[in-house]
Amino acid sequence: MPTKSLEVRLVSRPHGEPTLDNFSFATVDLPDPAPGEVLVRNVCLSVDPYMRGRMNEGKSYVPPFQLGTAMEGAAVGRVVASQDEKLPVGTYVQSFFGWREAYVAPASSLKTVDTRLAPASAYLGILGMTGLTAWVGLTRIANVKQGETVFISGGAGAVGSTACQLAKMRGCKVIASAGSEEKVALLRDELKVDYAFNYRNGEPLEHLEKGAPEGIDAYFDNTGGPQLEAALSSLRNFGRVALCGGVAGYNTPVTGPRNIILAIGKRLRLEGFIVSDHVKEMPLFLAEALPALQSGALTSHETFVHGLEAAPAALLDILHPGAANMGKMIVKLSN
Amino acid sequence: MPTKSLEVRLVSRPHGEPTLDNFSFATVDLPDPAPGEVLVRNVCLSVDPYMRGRMNEGKSYVPPFQLGTAMEGAAVGRVVASQDEKLPVGTYVQSFFGWREAYVAPASSLKTVDTRLAPASAYLGILGMTGLTAWVGLTRIANVKQGETVFISGGAGAVGSTACQLAKMRGCKVIASAGSEEKVALLRDELKVDYAFNYRNGEPLEHLEKGAPEGIDAYFDNTGGPQLEAALSSLRNFGRVALCGGVAGYNTPVTGPRNIILAIGKRLRLEGFIVSDHVKEMPLFLAEALPALQSGALTSHETFVHGLEAAPAALLDILHPGAANMGKMIVKLSN
Repeated sequence: MPTKSLEVRLVSRPHGEPTLDNFSFATVDLPDPAPGEVLVRNVCLSVDPYMRGRMNEGKSYVPPFQLGTAMEGAAVGRVVASQDEKLPVGTYVQSFFGWREAYVAPASSLKTVDTRLAPASAYLGILGMTGLTAWVGLTRIANVKQGETVFISGGAGAVGSTACQLAKMRGCKVIASAGSEEKVALLRDELKVDYAFNYRNGEPLEHLEKGAPEGIDAYFDNTGGPQLEAALSSLRNFGRVALCGGVAGYNTPVTGPRNIILAIGKRLRLEGFIVSDHVKEMPLFLAEALPALQSGALTSHETFVHGLEAAPAALLDILHPGAANMGKMIVKLSN
Repeated sequence: MPTKSLEVRLVSRPHGEPTLDNFSFATVDLPDPAPGEVLVRNVCLSVDPYMRGRMNEGKSYVPPFQLGTAMEGAAVGRVVASQDEKLPVGTYVQSFFGWREAYVAPASSLKTVDTRLAPASAYLGILGMTGLTAWVGLTRIANVKQGETVFISGGAGAVGSTACQLAKMRGCKVIASAGSEEKVALLRDELKVDYAFNYRNGEPLEHLEKGAPEGIDAYFDNTGGPQLEAALSSLRNFGRVALCGGVAGYNTPVTGPRNIILAIGKRLRLEGFIVSDHVKEMPLFLAEALPALQSGALTSHETFVHGLEAAPAALLDILHPGAANMGKMIVKLSN
């Protein structure tokens, strides 16, 4: 009897804000694994802001999703049938096959993850591309140094919450913003940032002047929009901006920073990056993050939704400024 | 009988656009030079966009002009009385004492210039800070390489006209813009850029798509505003922007680049700079520029106004998009 797998497909491209109608569900029959292959049941799926770009047609830094096929993305699953001795039944593996309950694939295309070191979901978040994004943005782009003051917008999100902690571990003073009081509490009480604010409550620049009266040295930008403009005003000479995300403008147009001319006199550097250019840094990042996670110096923050059916709504949610997720958004599957 | 010197003073700070009322003229008596000093009569004065910033109160990267004193700035003059054997009468020297007909100063505070190699005015422009600005922006900030396509806004201005030529000398394809048909003719016929356009005539992005169908690799920004936005759209992956000037916004507010989020996916770097951080590069720059100027590979483009009385209006002019000056604006003094 063939194995059934439910999957989420993109069936139409959004005009402006995506809706649930852009997705459909389908059940497919999986073949038995051939020699060298394994059958994997996913246990958790990654939901990421960059997926919004892939919903559009046309070139971006990752190719668009194909209509009528399962949404691609990172997932961790467990081998439930194996025709390859390197991946016995029970092994946890990471794939990029996305939003499906199960799949059959060559063992050689999968990466094992060690769930004794950290829970499976951590490999999609703080120990995965999300964590690497925070690390690259801070250390390779914004180039933060001990004693500097760093502002991180979207500080309670997946990348932001990791960046806040990595910056604190580096001896930086951290100012962070988020879009709800609940998230501000997370920033203040759990992530222990030095100054946290709700960017919907008052002017961002006034908050920066309160939190960093001498100005900031670096800005980790997850939002764009008015917070980028405020950061340019606050930045000190030779300040750096790591342009990482623009949730403020994913679905609706935003104004550009009217004060970008300040970058001349203050010799500011603004630089965009995408984590896939930096995967070779993963071992260096993990050498820092794994022990920190085990010692408790670094904590994984995750929001779980349950069942594949919840995945589309979870994606639509994280694309909003002030989304409900705290930390990384993960779809947990029951099997 | 004491030597008289006419000087231009800043007497009030502009609110928005500066006017001639912000300046006054005064005649001062100069003392005879003491031992170690020289009396210098200026032959030409530099008029530069950065002076606008110094007319404001408050911190900038250069301190504000003091009210009631002569406008500071670069000048080249001739020693007419000397009490120092290192600077005999007839020597040409460069100072930063600004908009005055004559001055007395310690010989040790002055730098000689060789008017056999190039005319005095060249030391204020193409062989001076103006030329160095173009060179630093291209080679140290935008980091242009042979075969790349470079867009230079304000291409007919002092810095822009030098940048166009230096980029051509480096084997780049050069797209340049200016604000009048006369300047576009200069770009096309004299500076020999590959594609020149009037940014007031059509959309800048349409021009960039025509001049650089494959996109640009670097942008030397002398204007800010809509041309910066167009450049961000045109830039290819890993493109660089040297933020050098913002004439579009000197006197009136401009919109920010609404598409700055493109910097993420395209991994763009935008970096502001000011030439005074890079004066140590002057010898390296001159080693390239002097022979090129003598061979004719590099040409100095200058607009002269005559007499100190013309200096304030010359400054007000170059602060406008579409100013009348072609190349460097120089005040020539009759003496």
